[in-house]
Amino acid sequence: MTSYKIHPAVAEAVRGFSCPASLGFGAVTAPVMYSVEYRNGAWGQGELLPYGDIAVPPGCKGLHFAEQIFEGMKAYRFEGKAPTLFRPRDNWARFVRSAERMCMVTVPEHLFMDGIEAVTGACAPHIPTASGQALYLRPFAFGLDPSYTIKASDNLRFMVIGSPVEAYATAPMRVMIERHDVRAARGGVGVAKTGGNYAASLRSSTLAIAGGYHVSLWLDPETRGNIEELSGMNVFAVIDGVLHTPELNDSILPGITRDSLIRLARHRGYKLVERVMNMEALLGDIRDGRCSEVFACGTAAIVNPIALFGEADGRTVPLPSATPVASELRQALLDIQEGRGSDPFGWIVEVPPLAL
Amino acid sequence: MTSYKIHPAVAEAVRGFSCPASLGFGAVTAPVMYSVEYRNGAWGQGELLPYGDIAVPPGCKGLHFAEQIFEGMKAYRFEGKAPTLFRPRDNWARFVRSAERMCMVTVPEHLFMDGIEAVTGACAPHIPTASGQALYLRPFAFGLDPSYTIKASDNLRFMVIGSPVEAYATAPMRVMIERHDVRAARGGVGVAKTGGNYAASLRSSTLAIAGGYHVSLWLDPETRGNIEELSGMNVFAVIDGVLHTPELNDSILPGITRDSLIRLARHRGYKLVERVMNMEALLGDIRDGRCSEVFACGTAAIVNPIALFGEADGRTVPLPSATPVASELRQALLDIQEGRGSDPFGWIVEVPPLAL
Ligand SMILES: Cc1ncc(COP(=O)(O)O)c(C=O)c1O
Ligand SMILES: Cc1ncc(COP(=O)(O)O)c(C=O)c1O
Repeated sequence: MTSYKIHPAVAEAVRGFSCPASLGFGAVTAPVMYSVEYRNGAWGQGELLPYGDIAVPPGCKGLHFAEQIFEGMKAYRFEGKAPTLFRPRDNWARFVRSAERMCMVTVPEHLFMDGIEAVTGACAPHIPTASGQALYLRPFAFGLDPSYTIKASDNLRFMVIGSPVEAYATAPMRVMIERHDVRAARGGVGVAKTGGNYAASLRSSTLAIAGGYHVSLWLDPETRGNIEELSGMNVFAVIDGVLHTPELNDSILPGITRDSLIRLARHRGYKLVERVMNMEALLGDIRDGRCSEVFACGTAAIVNPIALFGEADGRTVPLPSATPVASELRQALLDIQEGRGSDPFGWIVEVPPLAL
Repeated sequence: MTSYKIHPAVAEAVRGFSCPASLGFGAVTAPVMYSVEYRNGAWGQGELLPYGDIAVPPGCKGLHFAEQIFEGMKAYRFEGKAPTLFRPRDNWARFVRSAERMCMVTVPEHLFMDGIEAVTGACAPHIPTASGQALYLRPFAFGLDPSYTIKASDNLRFMVIGSPVEAYATAPMRVMIERHDVRAARGGVGVAKTGGNYAASLRSSTLAIAGGYHVSLWLDPETRGNIEELSGMNVFAVIDGVLHTPELNDSILPGITRDSLIRLARHRGYKLVERVMNMEALLGDIRDGRCSEVFACGTAAIVNPIALFGEADGRTVPLPSATPVASELRQALLDIQEGRGSDPFGWIVEVPPLAL
């Protein structure tokens, strides 16, 4: 018995789905989606549906005032076992904090977990099993009210869609230091996982890719000198054998991978410092050889080394190609996520099977 | 002959529509909408449709990365004459600048004007004619690509919807000075009319309304001391008989009403200064009686006096209730917009009738 409806066409949609060999990141769409609406002060009944276009009011605040929040998480499957999730309640808790920052109605834990488990359970046979592969899950919510007053919507839609994926980045990344644009203001919404932060990244990402880089690195909005994060990942550096990562503030997204790596690294005996990290100082440490590795992390990217930092004009500062700390932490994290290692922190949650 | 299709149900939708007596601002939805898509590098054919929900991919960047821009403008109708628009090509030009800031495909002038003229032409019999009333037009565009990479969409939808409205604000406004949250970063997207800026305003607007205010006033993101604008309006003050307004920067939306008032005021012999305007200095000028009026302006609000400035904790600084300069400029602007006065600046554009 589930607390949500299952549309009669779901079984056929799942049976008819076959996962292509080349997955990419987001190129393949899972055959089902979960949807539930909040109307007149109450949540309706959720429903698992075949994947497809959704109907929205053309004037809804999700499309006009960016009244929208989302999460990114993964379901893993390992030889013959049930699918598992990694720290799903931390994604739910962040989703709630994002909603609060945006003054949006919050999605209760049971509906969030219903959506995640419904999509994961239905797609279980199609979750790819090679290491680094997973079912990427995208819970999201947006305001439904068509209105021009700057005020949160009374009506909301919460959905979960998914994609069988491989790792977002598969080679060490070329990172462009963004010196002009700012992603999120101090006092703004950078701490929330909300569309406007990503919209503000689009120009820089476009310029970075055109300049032969993979991704932009954001500096703080006030001094423009301190490292915040990449457009979708947090950052760590190894300096004199110690791990350093920017301390959180209201313009950095508090990554769950970041938090996991901090705990894993300390557990493995690393010294780790959260602090304000100046960009020029880090470039100096790289040139001097004191900084031996810089790497990025996130649900999509897992742990991925940075090959070089560069400027829009093409000047670059390369990093050593050996990345032993990044490799060790990546493997330790994946061993937990993919069920090979033990789970000392209790991060793994099994998904109940879904009979269709 | 039009360059866009007209859906066969449009005539019936328009005939069946009747405008309620109480309009509000956005409570009534015009019976038709215009839509056109950009796909595979080219614009398709536009279509005028009966108003209704639209189908979008649930993972589209419009709903996840706030890849969305919009405009706000009005069509006016005056006894027996054809409907008119106010500076529509300036809205188009700002729409193009917004798109460029967001790295979105730009909508060509002829499609923008098609959409505006189609909705206005079809709704002509329903445009309310009392002074201060109009057909509010909302052109908007959003990214259609369902993808998780932080990169602009290749496919886009441009639409125009409308609402018969009265003025947004009808009494002098109580304005809360926002001391904590920041709407738009320097280096951010405040200069563009894009959803993320409004999402960043939602918490402050909610607090303002709960505190008995109408709207929030935003301070600059760097010093937090200088006046930027209201959540949807620009600001002017009358100090020692001279008009002052904050000079533009990359975190203020360059309002078309603001620009029109600057030109109108100078034309009428006022001295007008665009400069950095410190909030505490203005409050001092109000207390000293040197500042006799502060008013807001925008397409929605037209020209509307500010009754008082206040803090979140309830302390307020009241303004005089006589607002001769605001009243004079409001009337001069409305006389042009509503076709009563002459049009010395060539701001008015007639909309060709649409035979349905
Ligand atoms: C801006 C940004 N920073 C960091 C991260 C990493 O967060 P997490 O580890 O929770 O995926 C993400 C999301 O993936 C992000 O979008
Ligand atoms: C943030 C903001 N400032 C100012 C304005 C005023 O601009 P306009 O006079 O072009 O309507 C608007 C839009 O109406 C706005 O959204």
